[in-house]
Amino acid sequence: MKVCVLYSGGKDSSLMAVILHKLGYQVELATVNFGIFPSWKPAAQSAHNLGFSHQILKADTSLLDETVEMILNDGFPNNGLNHIHSQTMKIAAENYSVVADGTRRDDRVPKLNSNQIRSFEDSKQVQYLNLAGFGHKTIDKLSMRLFEVKKELTSKDNNSDYEIEIRYLIDQLRGDKTASRIFPEHIQSRVIGWRKNE
Amino acid sequence: MKVCVLYSGGKDSSLMAVILHKLGYQVELATVNFGIFPSWKPAAQSAHNLGFSHQILKADTSLLDETVEMILNDGFPNNGLNHIHSQTMKIAAENYSVVADGTRRDDRVPKLNSNQIRSFEDSKQVQYLNLAGFGHKTIDKLSMRLFEVKKELTSKDNNSDYEIEIRYLIDQLRGDKTASRIFPEHIQSRVIGWRKNE
Repeated sequence: MKVCVLYSGGKDSSLMAVILHKLGYQVELATVNFGIFPSWKPAAQSAHNLGFSHQILKADTSLLDETVEMILNDGFPNNGLNHIHSQTMKIAAENYSVVADGTRRDDRVPKLNSNQIRSFEDSKQVQYLNLAGFGHKTIDKLSMRLFEVKKELTSKDNNSDYEIEIRYLIDQLRGDKTASRIFPEHIQSRVIGWRKNE
Repeated sequence: MKVCVLYSGGKDSSLMAVILHKLGYQVELATVNFGIFPSWKPAAQSAHNLGFSHQILKADTSLLDETVEMILNDGFPNNGLNHIHSQTMKIAAENYSVVADGTRRDDRVPKLNSNQIRSFEDSKQVQYLNLAGFGHKTIDKLSMRLFEVKKELTSKDNNSDYEIEIRYLIDQLRGDKTASRIFPEHIQSRVIGWRKNE
């Protein structure tokens, strides 16, 4: 029972990986990358520290281009992030029959609705799993118990979200300040390893 | 970290219990009963066979009366089942700060929508967890790997769902054939223990 967990190094996708590992799945973490900027590195480090296998899911820059175009047209990232995530899931589904991510109950973006999930599962003949049964309070508590977590301001050197390469391309196209108007600064919780007692 | 899992002896609530146990929760299974018919017994047997502690969550017959009235007025069980389930969750929340059930992604009834979940968590100061991150295909596969499961026609002697006492009361009030018009026969998967290799 192999499962591909789309992985950012954050606590949500880390917890999803742990749950599936504990249920007996052979967990393989994967971080998408478009070859524009090596934003997969922090996720690979988190995966290594937790002892999970990790790979880069290489994707065509056309998907990044489409996403950036959507975001610049919209002036906000939501539709673009949903697009890049659903397409990344399809890439993962090419090589796995079970695909998972760390989407939790109270996440807004990126998130598939129930019709999109059914369509993804049926069209790709995969099972899709996420953390929709858990809210952020539960995930925070579990993460604090399981993981060493580092809270820090997000930067291109400590984050593996889609946002990093999107920002990189936007700034290349439109100049240095454009991306920071669309993606405000935020504090992230990055998993840097197991807690000592785990 | 104690959690109360509302438990029927079926594969969904059994899997929820196993996941939470593996995450380090102290799992206590609970089956609601109104004192009309001892429908908690099959669930208690499943819990015992899996090695989980189990209790009866005693509820006032007024809740069963309200539920039966809703179902008889509607002529179908959905609203009544949602009502009895959400009220049962509140009873569990009186003694636990984490309440869980086996609701999965593709369940229809009983199921709380996201506003109802938020309202439940906020008003009762609890965390609510379920299996909404998993679809039936995944749960079937996991259950087959983890549990000995018995497939059989549902009856009052092998099932611990709300349905049993509801049917019992409906037949008392309206005669023997009424409940079977509202609740059609169905095949259930009851967990009777761990698979040998677990």
